[in-house]
Amino acid sequence: MERHFEQELGELKERLLWMGSLAERAVHQSVQSVLESSEALAHRVVEEELAINQMQMEIDDRVLQMLALQQLMASDLRFVLAASRINADLERIGDQAVNIAQSALRVVQHPRVRPYIDLPRMSLAAESMVRDSLNALVNKDTDLAHSVMLRDDQVDHLRDQVFRELLTYMMENSSVVFPAFELILVAKNLERIADHATNIAEDVIYMVVGHDVRHHAPEQA
Amino acid sequence: MERHFEQELGELKERLLWMGSLAERAVHQSVQSVLESSEALAHRVVEEELAINQMQMEIDDRVLQMLALQQLMASDLRFVLAASRINADLERIGDQAVNIAQSALRVVQHPRVRPYIDLPRMSLAAESMVRDSLNALVNKDTDLAHSVMLRDDQVDHLRDQVFRELLTYMMENSSVVFPAFELILVAKNLERIADHATNIAEDVIYMVVGHDVRHHAPEQA
Repeated sequence: MERHFEQELGELKERLLWMGSLAERAVHQSVQSVLESSEALAHRVVEEELAINQMQMEIDDRVLQMLALQQLMASDLRFVLAASRINADLERIGDQAVNIAQSALRVVQHPRVRPYIDLPRMSLAAESMVRDSLNALVNKDTDLAHSVMLRDDQVDHLRDQVFRELLTYMMENSSVVFPAFELILVAKNLERIADHATNIAEDVIYMVVGHDVRHHAPEQA
Repeated sequence: MERHFEQELGELKERLLWMGSLAERAVHQSVQSVLESSEALAHRVVEEELAINQMQMEIDDRVLQMLALQQLMASDLRFVLAASRINADLERIGDQAVNIAQSALRVVQHPRVRPYIDLPRMSLAAESMVRDSLNALVNKDTDLAHSVMLRDDQVDHLRDQVFRELLTYMMENSSVVFPAFELILVAKNLERIADHATNIAEDVIYMVVGHDVRHHAPEQA
């Protein structure tokens, strides 16, 4: 009944990619539900989160079994440990998509406040970071992982733009304070999704190069 | 040079507790820097984050070595895997404290907007969740872990109160929009800190009982 380790490793990668695509799809649909004021789409995001949660538990079981049954080489060990943490990040991305969908359900009760130019740009950037962080994992591509880390600054920049515009609206017209605030929460959720993608990218580099690039050592101890 | 596994496990717990106390202290000081408009305290939080980051890397190395050198029993394996994920959560709590400290540095440039009653309550609740999630880990105390998970709802409730009050201020007086918004960001950071403590508590239960309590299975498949 013992399975070949390479095959198990391949299956683990495949599951992480699948879970990543579910998470990315959840993010995209949740933002669409805000932009299109679609309650149906928002409800679908909430329902589909169940599949992401199930997948998380399945991946954790696989990780535990792989560690329990085999004495792994250092590089495989780092991959399996990274998979365990990345799994947690992907599940939390799903949580954030649900938060966005819940904002959508509240936003539809207010008049539309603005044409939403930066929010979809921010969403596309965050989605591509999720996708590329997983591609970096599967292909052990540290260049791609580094590019994900750099793009986090772009997402933060877009977030600041979204904040500035919405706060200006609020100052000009106090009746839009509540709906504009919901869009601020959506931008915060997208920021957090990009942070999770950045965490994944950092784990990929740790896994591949075998030492830590997350924190540069201080100049002096 | 081989060390006894029980001793290594003890040291790993001790390091996690130490890191947890550093993270809890960072949260407390960061919120104090907002409440007291103290730039010095805010700068100290930013400086002290280095120690948390160093600790994260040390713990990750310990985890890797413990998995590489020993074939672990299932329960020890779950503990070490949980330690790896909890380590990541603690580091991110440190990140959130730094974000709060950075808000403090911006807030001091504006006039004080309100007497801050709910924000300190929210902070104390989040800090106690961090502390108790780590105590639950070290004592394998699932009751305490469950109480941490329950308290997350209280923090979310306090966050909603903070939001409502600050948004009402914004509607009444457009000149406070920017400083009130900084306090909203602080509340969001505290919410996220409580989320990390909840993740730690969930990992503790997974570790102790050996199966997943994070997601209840849907009523029907």
